[in-house]
Amino acid sequence: MHLKTYFPILDWSRRYNRSSLTSDLIAAVIVTIMLIPQSLAYALLAGLPPEVGLYASILPLIAYAVFGTSNALAVGPVAVISLMTAAAVGRVAAEGSGDYASAAIVLAMLSGLILVGLGLFRLGFIANFLSHPVISGFITASGIIIATGQLGGLLGIPTQGSAMPELVLSILENLSNINFLTLAVGAGSLLLLYVFRKHLRPWLRRLGINDGLATLIVRAGPVLVVLLAMASAALFDLKASGVALVGDVPQGLPLLSLPRLDLPLIQQLLLPALIISIVGFVESVSVAQTLAAKRRERIEPNQELIGLGASNIAAAIGGGYPVTGGFARSVVNFDAGAATPAAGAFTAVGIAVATIVLTPFLALLPKATLAATIVLAVLSLVDFSILRKAYAYSKADFAAVAITLFATLALGVEVGISLGVAASILVFLYRSSKPHAAIVGQVPGTEHYRNINRHKVHTVPGILSIRVDESLYFANARYLEDLVYAQAAANPELEHVILMCSAVNAIDMSALESLEAINLRLADLGVHFHLSEIKGPVMDHLAETDFLKHLNGQVFLTQHQAVQSLTAGAGEVRKASPTEVIKVAPVAI
Amino acid sequence: MHLKTYFPILDWSRRYNRSSLTSDLIAAVIVTIMLIPQSLAYALLAGLPPEVGLYASILPLIAYAVFGTSNALAVGPVAVISLMTAAAVGRVAAEGSGDYASAAIVLAMLSGLILVGLGLFRLGFIANFLSHPVISGFITASGIIIATGQLGGLLGIPTQGSAMPELVLSILENLSNINFLTLAVGAGSLLLLYVFRKHLRPWLRRLGINDGLATLIVRAGPVLVVLLAMASAALFDLKASGVALVGDVPQGLPLLSLPRLDLPLIQQLLLPALIISIVGFVESVSVAQTLAAKRRERIEPNQELIGLGASNIAAAIGGGYPVTGGFARSVVNFDAGAATPAAGAFTAVGIAVATIVLTPFLALLPKATLAATIVLAVLSLVDFSILRKAYAYSKADFAAVAITLFATLALGVEVGISLGVAASILVFLYRSSKPHAAIVGQVPGTEHYRNINRHKVHTVPGILSIRVDESLYFANARYLEDLVYAQAAANPELEHVILMCSAVNAIDMSALESLEAINLRLADLGVHFHLSEIKGPVMDHLAETDFLKHLNGQVFLTQHQAVQSLTAGAGEVRKASPTEVIKVAPVAI
Repeated sequence: MHLKTYFPILDWSRRYNRSSLTSDLIAAVIVTIMLIPQSLAYALLAGLPPEVGLYASILPLIAYAVFGTSNALAVGPVAVISLMTAAAVGRVAAEGSGDYASAAIVLAMLSGLILVGLGLFRLGFIANFLSHPVISGFITASGIIIATGQLGGLLGIPTQGSAMPELVLSILENLSNINFLTLAVGAGSLLLLYVFRKHLRPWLRRLGINDGLATLIVRAGPVLVVLLAMASAALFDLKASGVALVGDVPQGLPLLSLPRLDLPLIQQLLLPALIISIVGFVESVSVAQTLAAKRRERIEPNQELIGLGASNIAAAIGGGYPVTGGFARSVVNFDAGAATPAAGAFTAVGIAVATIVLTPFLALLPKATLAATIVLAVLSLVDFSILRKAYAYSKADFAAVAITLFATLALGVEVGISLGVAASILVFLYRSSKPHAAIVGQVPGTEHYRNINRHKVHTVPGILSIRVDESLYFANARYLEDLVYAQAAANPELEHVILMCSAVNAIDMSALESLEAINLRLADLGVHFHLSEIKGPVMDHLAETDFLKHLNGQVFLTQHQAVQSLTAGAGEVRKASPTEVIKVAPVAI
Repeated sequence: MHLKTYFPILDWSRRYNRSSLTSDLIAAVIVTIMLIPQSLAYALLAGLPPEVGLYASILPLIAYAVFGTSNALAVGPVAVISLMTAAAVGRVAAEGSGDYASAAIVLAMLSGLILVGLGLFRLGFIANFLSHPVISGFITASGIIIATGQLGGLLGIPTQGSAMPELVLSILENLSNINFLTLAVGAGSLLLLYVFRKHLRPWLRRLGINDGLATLIVRAGPVLVVLLAMASAALFDLKASGVALVGDVPQGLPLLSLPRLDLPLIQQLLLPALIISIVGFVESVSVAQTLAAKRRERIEPNQELIGLGASNIAAAIGGGYPVTGGFARSVVNFDAGAATPAAGAFTAVGIAVATIVLTPFLALLPKATLAATIVLAVLSLVDFSILRKAYAYSKADFAAVAITLFATLALGVEVGISLGVAASILVFLYRSSKPHAAIVGQVPGTEHYRNINRHKVHTVPGILSIRVDESLYFANARYLEDLVYAQAAANPELEHVILMCSAVNAIDMSALESLEAINLRLADLGVHFHLSEIKGPVMDHLAETDFLKHLNGQVFLTQHQAVQSLTAGAGEVRKASPTEVIKVAPVAI
């Protein structure tokens, strides 16, 4: 029972049959074809040799097949995480050095350990603090940064920086060094990729080719472009003309190894690893949830943390770099019919074979072709409409999107997303510190009480009913005091104040002290202070304190009962004795 | 009108009369007598020459009289702010150096500018994020640190550090160097101060002295001890015996000057200045509010920021260090009958006179006597009962107190209070990310709906009413989805889900997307999704989106109407057309 929770493979493998096998194998072939050029390209984006992208697409997929709970999620290198890897590792080592590659491995290991830790301690909820607006703004900004960075690859000039100001400056500085043959290879690749994606399928259909085969051919488009580019490089000796090629890479599969334990390095990479873990998890879990919902399946978010963590640890052991579940490839996997996580394991075998077969030829691959692959992939991430949508809905959400988007562009991925999260939390705190409050009256013909400014309601002279629309806690405790005192000062004939607590979900110690102060102050003025519609859990807390003993008034189950009872008594309210209130409380509230 | 807001003196000075003058003068005399030894001692606590404490009790009091709104608040050097000054300035300059004193002046200037800025932009609400538990924990820890630090002065040994581990270690290391004559002076001062405070008044009363005079004599106790100590030092040549005296100090009043603009120093002191400003403001404004409430007066928190800010700027110009409103001296001021802020200005005159008269004699004052004054003053700050009270009320509040208290003791004032604030905010966010939710039913005989687990209520088969007790926002949006899906999965006969929104005070964009997803998913299952009791401001937001058009159900004014209408239709619910819902919304909701 417990084992199955942590090893979902024990569960689904017992139901595995020939039909699942066929579905998974077909999906694996399609995803493998799609993943090869992406892996090479994203590794380059991360500042790593292209073969590292292939390495990161082998063991992590097998680890996810053992520990993951989504049947459709395809893990591996993705654009945003590759950019974040480049930003983090670029600060501690020079690109192209051995230190750079091993720092990427340490980053994957740390990220894996963090994810597994969060999963074991069931801390997945912290991912909830990345709000939709923040994620949207971050992904759009990342797409822009990545596409801009790849301009260098397309133009054959060096670029540097992982935020826009530095990137743009480095492109402008090198603009005179454009290699036009590289530009031709890049532009050609871009054009071919675009045509394959947009026009190949209708054309194949017109040729009478069936849909299954057409899909396979369309997915193979990027691989064809890669092969074509390698052939051109060999045929026209592009290297001699100054076109940057990938160059010699180690052949075959990587040796397994544990990353070395370098404490200063770990300290420098810990925070980036945490941010990468959370961003990767949020991206991955939302893809997995969307796809699971379509087939009425469930995924288990805390186990997903363990699955992704295992994948990253596997990436570190297998010479890769941080990975997560990718959106596009998971959709392809899903559409191709992947029935279980085994599809991922089969994909891993496919990539391993490709690694062995491909590495001898990779030397000939023009980097501009990989840059073209990246540009086309990330441009679909850029979506400015979120700014308009958020603006229309609320200024707070707009602020979160805008701050995340522009801070990421201007200051880089880590600062950008951190500021976005901080801004969205601050906005939430600010709002809850100045809550909405309403004076309420009875909606005629009902027992329902609503805002006197929005509804035609009945009120009773001498009784003031205030509804505060927020939990009472330290940030708004003083606000509540000010509110009640101001109302009391404005109503000289006041005899009763009823605080309607239907929207009060918690009362903390600071707020309790404010309630005590309000009670005292109103008593001084000869005004009774009553509470109505206190929720059960809130009442449980209050019942443990002395507050109800001091209360110069009563606690009512409903606002209607409060008004009726106080009107019946015609201003003469009996002070509830402490024992009475406390004895009544658990039954009545 | 506007001028009076920013210069409250224009308001109260017009009503000033002979009776106010008499009251203010009497209060000023008593506060002056109390403030002299405190100012000397707290300056020493801040690591500054004692006369700086006197300087900090002249101009700031006049500035507060012009800009402040409290009739009773007495500003000047206080214990906690002095400790925080020592911690902040001790990091940038060596104690006793000229740099140390000028850094303290820069700190006061920065703190003043920050406070005025917060006041002008009406940002006083940020002080609300210092919750009662955090302040209590912080004050208790500060009291312990201060008292421990003064042990050095009482024992005649050097101490260092502004957190417990370093302090205790430095005391233990120097324990063999105790100067027993210093200890005798310190212990004697402590004993005399204690006897004066506890036993002088009953003894004077027995002598038949009237209450007013008795109060004056009791308040003069510390000054008498100071005079006695100086006399002993002169008489027995204590300096020659190794008792540390204050030593020569500049005579007369300080020259006015502006602090020099040193950018690196300002950068180093900016964060401490911010923390000092907020702590000082919170301490001061709560004293001012408590005292104002006793006389049914009002203070204006945002103008208080400007008043305190002006005081700190004045402290900087007059050669002082950060000041704020002190609790004990404000109570004395209040009890002595201070009628307007003019009492503070008169106190300033008193301190100025004392400065001129006293400085020649300060050279003879034993530091141990000042240490005794501090110890007695701060021990009243230490109150561990808050730990017990918080523990009894809620684990969250207890965590905030405990973290603040122990972090302050172990890691120092700035880290301590920052961790406390962070902890209390995190606890609040954590709670709101996992809100309380209840399935509700009708309380028999009423139109009121409550938790089925706490009350005997009626429910209708096929209708599920869920009340979520929290605003819906990014941190709990996914939680809400999980909750509804789980309930829907557990109820196969479900036809209607009603989300009762009486406790939903806001719906942000992330939550709106979750509601859209819930609506879609329930529609797939053939279940209608309704909303009831949406608050006006929330409905205003929803009405601007497409959500109500997509809603596979209706919006009801009350939960009771929802259940009645759905029961009457007997499962056959008309889908509200978008225009209908939106047209009805502003009226009905």
